[in-house]
Amino acid sequence: MPSSKQKTSKSAPKSGSANFQPLAVGIDIGGTGTKYGIVDRNGNILYSSEISTRGHQLVESFIDALYDQLTILIEEAGGTGRMKGIGVGAPNGNYYTGTIEYAPNLPWKGIIPLAKLIENKFHLPVVLTNDANAAALGEMMYGAAKEMKDFIMITLGTGVGSGIVANGKLIYGHDGFAGELGHTIIIPDGRLHEGTGKHGSLEAYASATGVRLTAIEFLNKSKEESLLRSIPPNKIDSKKVYDAAIEGDKLAKEIFDYTGKILGLALANFVMFSSPEAIILFGGLTKAGELILKPTRQHMEENLIQVFQNKVKILVSHLKEADAAILGASALVWEMK
Amino acid sequence: MPSSKQKTSKSAPKSGSANFQPLAVGIDIGGTGTKYGIVDRNGNILYSSEISTRGHQLVESFIDALYDQLTILIEEAGGTGRMKGIGVGAPNGNYYTGTIEYAPNLPWKGIIPLAKLIENKFHLPVVLTNDANAAALGEMMYGAAKEMKDFIMITLGTGVGSGIVANGKLIYGHDGFAGELGHTIIIPDGRLHEGTGKHGSLEAYASATGVRLTAIEFLNKSKEESLLRSIPPNKIDSKKVYDAAIEGDKLAKEIFDYTGKILGLALANFVMFSSPEAIILFGGLTKAGELILKPTRQHMEENLIQVFQNKVKILVSHLKEADAAILGASALVWEMK
Repeated sequence: MPSSKQKTSKSAPKSGSANFQPLAVGIDIGGTGTKYGIVDRNGNILYSSEISTRGHQLVESFIDALYDQLTILIEEAGGTGRMKGIGVGAPNGNYYTGTIEYAPNLPWKGIIPLAKLIENKFHLPVVLTNDANAAALGEMMYGAAKEMKDFIMITLGTGVGSGIVANGKLIYGHDGFAGELGHTIIIPDGRLHEGTGKHGSLEAYASATGVRLTAIEFLNKSKEESLLRSIPPNKIDSKKVYDAAIEGDKLAKEIFDYTGKILGLALANFVMFSSPEAIILFGGLTKAGELILKPTRQHMEENLIQVFQNKVKILVSHLKEADAAILGASALVWEMK
Repeated sequence: MPSSKQKTSKSAPKSGSANFQPLAVGIDIGGTGTKYGIVDRNGNILYSSEISTRGHQLVESFIDALYDQLTILIEEAGGTGRMKGIGVGAPNGNYYTGTIEYAPNLPWKGIIPLAKLIENKFHLPVVLTNDANAAALGEMMYGAAKEMKDFIMITLGTGVGSGIVANGKLIYGHDGFAGELGHTIIIPDGRLHEGTGKHGSLEAYASATGVRLTAIEFLNKSKEESLLRSIPPNKIDSKKVYDAAIEGDKLAKEIFDYTGKILGLALANFVMFSSPEAIILFGGLTKAGELILKPTRQHMEENLIQVFQNKVKILVSHLKEADAAILGASALVWEMK
């Protein structure tokens, strides 16, 4: 059964003329749940709620549930006529085709024409892209990348996602799949990435999963005492490494240093590609703060040629995680032609 | 003394109304010589010639010589009034500021306001960018990237240069220096790059210099017989490695395999950044043909995640090396607002 809990609106719809300003629907599809909301031009989330993704093995049943729940919010916000369109962020989402293609974490397999399915149901224009691209748009419109024309967004969660903005526009590439920076190879013949079968990709190291694997490796290789030794290996995660590091645990700090070293090297390569004004980091790993940011900054600078040194800001997104996904998806709507 | 040899025009200026179509001046500044020419909208180089770069220790003297020589061509082509503008490709050239900044291979040190100097002398609008970006524009307008909106140009010469086009536009980055792919780190803690002091950059391996260093390394490490052993180490260059490989020399082939392995890995990373339709290779090393292209293609594919596999063309530029630089620089003019 879809779970649906209505959230108190952050900013009540205003009366009078403001009511006639167009609004945007933002939908963020995740492996577990799908968040959606109604957003005004200034990035105020007027209404928002969530249904289960995982609970719908058939995409048609998912669309039906989404329609039932989201329609309630649309009606409260003034009806379909006030909605400029629907923006959707989804893993493996393709901007050009509106499809989700072979998303490993979603219940629906193969190529799913999601934008078309939503459009047919809601009779509103729909634009779709991958979740990290949507996040980048959200940062550009409402977050740390306001006024920037050249930046890179990196999401450091269970995996590593990215969205690249150059000349004020998202880079989609010729096929709509640009910006898979988590899969770039940073350590040739390095750690195996179970999902892709490739060795040494950024995601194999600079993700929550990567930090966990580094912890297990370090504990096996070194004889050093550590708070982490009291935790069964299968219970170690990036949060526990963080907690230990905060307690002053030397090995835990070395785990973050190592993660930052690889992330910093990767960022240097990205900078020499598109020369962004800033790199914006988002997601769980950023909660480690300077534990990871300091080595990242240091190793980025060390690997940059002179012309790029001391120029590129590494910023942490200040959008709330719960809001960012909806804001990013809704931002797609204002970009529509 | 500047050398100046007038080239027979490839395509004689047409009489009649065609004479009133605007023309573009293209200038390509290299470490040794500066090529320039007058080009029509269709990429016909009507007039071209060359002066020495190295012979002018002062940029002012260079500008004076350039003015004297180029003015002759401009007059022959119908005078300043027919010229839409001047496009300049130069190492370390910055599109936004029109300056050349700390170019290690040019006689003029520091930051040189080259576009301004040329503009003041010729009283024509001037636009400047780095040589690899200009080459990319040339390919887009007249070469292998015609009709492409997303591609990457890589020049494999003494060094490795690059120009990246996304959404139909060159990526300059926030400061005008984007596209330094030769300096991305492919082998962490790998071979030292003398010029930058960094370890393991693409340029340290996949350039003429890199092939030479790989040859010396391979000869020292292995006991294998090779035609290259009869050449004094300081005389070995990429051309000699090529000649040996063509003769069937096993070690020489392994040198190209190794170069292609690193180049292919680098290209995979670039593809996962901007998802180009094609990667266009240009410059001396491409003369090795399949010796380098085959391992490059193979290792690019091996390092790509599935969604990018068997999609991206690796093409070799078919523009003549002598023309490409002038064409690329002149292409900047047609892009002017």
